[in-house]
Amino acid sequence: MPVFDTVAIVGVGLIGGSIGLALRERKMARQIIGIGHRLQSLQTAQEVGAIDVASTDVEVGVKDADFVVVCTPVDAIATHVQQVANACPPTATITDAGSTKAEIVGAVDRYLGSRRDGPCFVGSHPIAGDHRTGPAHARGELFAGRVVVVTPTSASDNQAVECVDRFWTALGARVIKMPADEHDAALAATSHLPHLIAAALAGATPTDLLPLTAGGWRDTTRVAGGNPHLWRAIFATNRQPVLDALQRFDERLTALRAALSDKHDAHFEQLLLDAKRTRDALGD
Amino acid sequence: MPVFDTVAIVGVGLIGGSIGLALRERKMARQIIGIGHRLQSLQTAQEVGAIDVASTDVEVGVKDADFVVVCTPVDAIATHVQQVANACPPTATITDAGSTKAEIVGAVDRYLGSRRDGPCFVGSHPIAGDHRTGPAHARGELFAGRVVVVTPTSASDNQAVECVDRFWTALGARVIKMPADEHDAALAATSHLPHLIAAALAGATPTDLLPLTAGGWRDTTRVAGGNPHLWRAIFATNRQPVLDALQRFDERLTALRAALSDKHDAHFEQLLLDAKRTRDALGD
Repeated sequence: MPVFDTVAIVGVGLIGGSIGLALRERKMARQIIGIGHRLQSLQTAQEVGAIDVASTDVEVGVKDADFVVVCTPVDAIATHVQQVANACPPTATITDAGSTKAEIVGAVDRYLGSRRDGPCFVGSHPIAGDHRTGPAHARGELFAGRVVVVTPTSASDNQAVECVDRFWTALGARVIKMPADEHDAALAATSHLPHLIAAALAGATPTDLLPLTAGGWRDTTRVAGGNPHLWRAIFATNRQPVLDALQRFDERLTALRAALSDKHDAHFEQLLLDAKRTRDALGD
Repeated sequence: MPVFDTVAIVGVGLIGGSIGLALRERKMARQIIGIGHRLQSLQTAQEVGAIDVASTDVEVGVKDADFVVVCTPVDAIATHVQQVANACPPTATITDAGSTKAEIVGAVDRYLGSRRDGPCFVGSHPIAGDHRTGPAHARGELFAGRVVVVTPTSASDNQAVECVDRFWTALGARVIKMPADEHDAALAATSHLPHLIAAALAGATPTDLLPLTAGGWRDTTRVAGGNPHLWRAIFATNRQPVLDALQRFDERLTALRAALSDKHDAHFEQLLLDAKRTRDALGD
């Protein structure tokens, strides 16, 4: 028997589409409703089997949902959650899949905070993805074995927190709960900074040198191929933590530069070894 | 009929081992001799089929070779080329596979420059590799479709240059000829800088945050898993070009930082878009 009756997914891109596929493959919902403003994406999501029903209207799409996941760009999520909360059943649970959390959960708490009888929201961030976007690249196993950070606040309903935890766990993910600002500081270092660095490296490379690149440049710059508009919003909602992480990167780069410039090659090698130890701790 | 009678490979790691496998698979040599000081590597190279005969002695190993490739770490290559030149037949051609070229070809030219009747050397750099090292990871197709930069000097013998060109072309590579210092400036930007950046990023990441990394961090730091000792030598033989490339990276990173800090989000997005265009020009 499915865990959920009707799950609504607002935004059927790579993440939303993959959630739909995972729900279907794991038989977790009787019905999956996809909501979006682009008919092309909805059609692709339906063709790949990610959604049963499509709607371009949030109010119509969520009216019978017992669980709603908002997978739109981070700068649109809080508004969409408010629209969902105004239209879905009062017993529904709402979560999101945004890459930054403090601004979103803060805005939603301020909006829903005074209500005691409506639907509950708890923020989430599945740490999974791809530099390719869109429902055509959706995969039902995208979340299997990956971490999903769930960010309850003092305003969060305990049952809703557990419901969101069960949702991601059933999709194969490992749930870690932490405060939204702690999440944002961590992801600034582990995701947003690498993106910034990759963009600076790709942007600083003259295109006529591309034939002389190999796997190193290719790997190091891969994420710079991501959608600039989506990433602009991620950075704009996590400014100071990214600047702080960049400061720590700068200190390390300055040490490497000084050792290279001053011919302190033994120290330079030690800095490379430190980096290798951290990298090797992750595995291939 | 094989193009070469006896090819000697000095240093049977990933590159040397892959050359041996490629020679065998393409039936390019009657006999392949592997030379190294570590018996374990020679044994592995023989087990994977990269070499026919093993020797721990350069003089003995190269005495009947008509072509010799020196694949040792960059800070050892010039010395090995001199040893080879003193022991191989006067008609032999010698090349190398070092990641930096100006110091190596300069040192060899100074040593061999006055001779008119001995073996000829022309520097090479196959732009192919892997962050995994050693002959166990060797692949005969490592050079197929990849670029090999060949760096003749004013002292180079034309026939030797053409012989080295034919050698790499027969291994499936595309040969580009350019001066050694031009090669070093280009590779500083396309290979050495990415390594430095990846090391700074990996080294700046607290290990307790590793569970919160995803594909972005993983890709961006991958090369930091490379051998610190080998890379120390690469950087030490290409100091100023790397510092120059780092300067251009810094300017781009400073622009991104300023746009983020000053909330010039449209300009920030434009910088991301510039980077994406360069990255997309390369392909996946």
